Amino acid sequence: MKQEIKVSVDAVVFGYDQESGVSVLLIKRRNEPFQKMWALPGGLVLNGESLDEAVNRELREEAGIDVNYLEQLYTFGSPERDPRNHAISISYFGLVRPQDFQLAAHTDAEDVAWFNIKKLPKLAFDHKKIIDAAIKRLRGKITYEPVGFELLDKEFPFSDLEKLYQTLLDHEIDRRNFKKKIIGLGILEELDETIQRKSGRPARLFKFNKKKYFELKEKGYNFDIFF
Amino acid sequence: MKQEIKVSVDAVVFGYDQESGVSVLLIKRRNEPFQKMWALPGGLVLNGESLDEAVNRELREEAGIDVNYLEQLYTFGSPERDPRNHAISISYFGLVRPQDFQLAAHTDAEDVAWFNIKKLPKLAFDHKKIIDAAIKRLRGKITYEPVGFELLDKEFPFSDLEKLYQTLLDHEIDRRNFKKKIIGLGILEELDETIQRKSGRPARLFKFNKKKYFELKEKGYNFDIFF
Repeated sequence: MKQEIKVSVDAVVFGYDQESGVSVLLIKRRNEPFQKMWALPGGLVLNGESLDEAVNRELREEAGIDVNYLEQLYTFGSPERDPRNHAISISYFGLVRPQDFQLAAHTDAEDVAWFNIKKLPKLAFDHKKIIDAAIKRLRGKITYEPVGFELLDKEFPFSDLEKLYQTLLDHEIDRRNFKKKIIGLGILEELDETIQRKSGRPARLFKFNKKKYFELKEKGYNFDIFF
Repeated sequence: MKQEIKVSVDAVVFGYDQESGVSVLLIKRRNEPFQKMWALPGGLVLNGESLDEAVNRELREEAGIDVNYLEQLYTFGSPERDPRNHAISISYFGLVRPQDFQLAAHTDAEDVAWFNIKKLPKLAFDHKKIIDAAIKRLRGKITYEPVGFELLDKEFPFSDLEKLYQTLLDHEIDRRNFKKKIIGLGILEELDETIQRKSGRPARLFKFNKKKYFELKEKGYNFDIFF
């Protein structure tokens, strides 16, 4: 019997913003099924196209953006996940700064927008499940590799990094231990400059030591202070 | 244009044996392409079948075995990986005791056997790459969750657990620190009995605390002593 299974890719692009927290990029579906509902950007892989190429093409086509750092999350393959036919989805995820992207809906997408992960609309297909898996993976990931280089300003007060971790983990962290651990990793350089924000004392600025940061990103570490 | 991509699953079943080390289950291909070459057990997903069902069915059909603990590894999707057509493979991996399985080659497989991962034959498709990815994942995994419950005897001297970790990691470990860490996790119970093996003093026997072991397996930890 001929195999009749469709192959698609879906992208979970998270955005981090200091004020609004963690969001995810969604598109509004132009066509059935789930017409007018919000969904992850994605679609069918073309013949002869790699999975990476497919997910990048779909993001360009449906949301008008290029995302450099996507990694494979999981392949969802339940035969019931698409009402039309048996369709598997290879999902990808990444974390970006929303302000770096100019969104533009095209082709299958009627609209495109960032949604806070705590206020998601009802989603098409099993996309809620895919987002939940991506959030879980993201939280696991920041315990064994550094995060922040592409997300914070080039120079930032330590409290910005603290806030990033608290927001991604969605819980308070022991600030003193956190600082000790981060400093111990050697990924930060303390600058002479300070910054004055609203109330409070001027805060010392830091920047990442790029070499050390990417070495640790590659090598991994164990960072159990939060748990 | 109609999508013409085939969907298959492949299984990397590792075996651990105290004497012979880590092996992987391979089948000898009955048909073209790569006829008579060794390959991972696997094949096309059937219409309406889940990915888990497919990989379990292929293991039964080609190798005559049921493996309970498989988890998804990665989806390989390069259009060049199969000479016949664009075919993606969702790979799974697991770790078992070879002596618990009675192998029997069927259907597409002309033969089935365990091969030591250090003495692999030339493999069909990109299966060497898939096995390498599985070895890397396995080594990563044992640094954040316990291993051994299904692999060691019910009661074992501590040196058996040490040997398991050394074999999986493929390098020596600091034995004193390892013991301190493992004992600290609370997953072991020390018994009154000892065992006498060849030369040397009688060694104290241990068994796993099943409850604690599976709690930690679920929760994860950070185990950086090896690195």
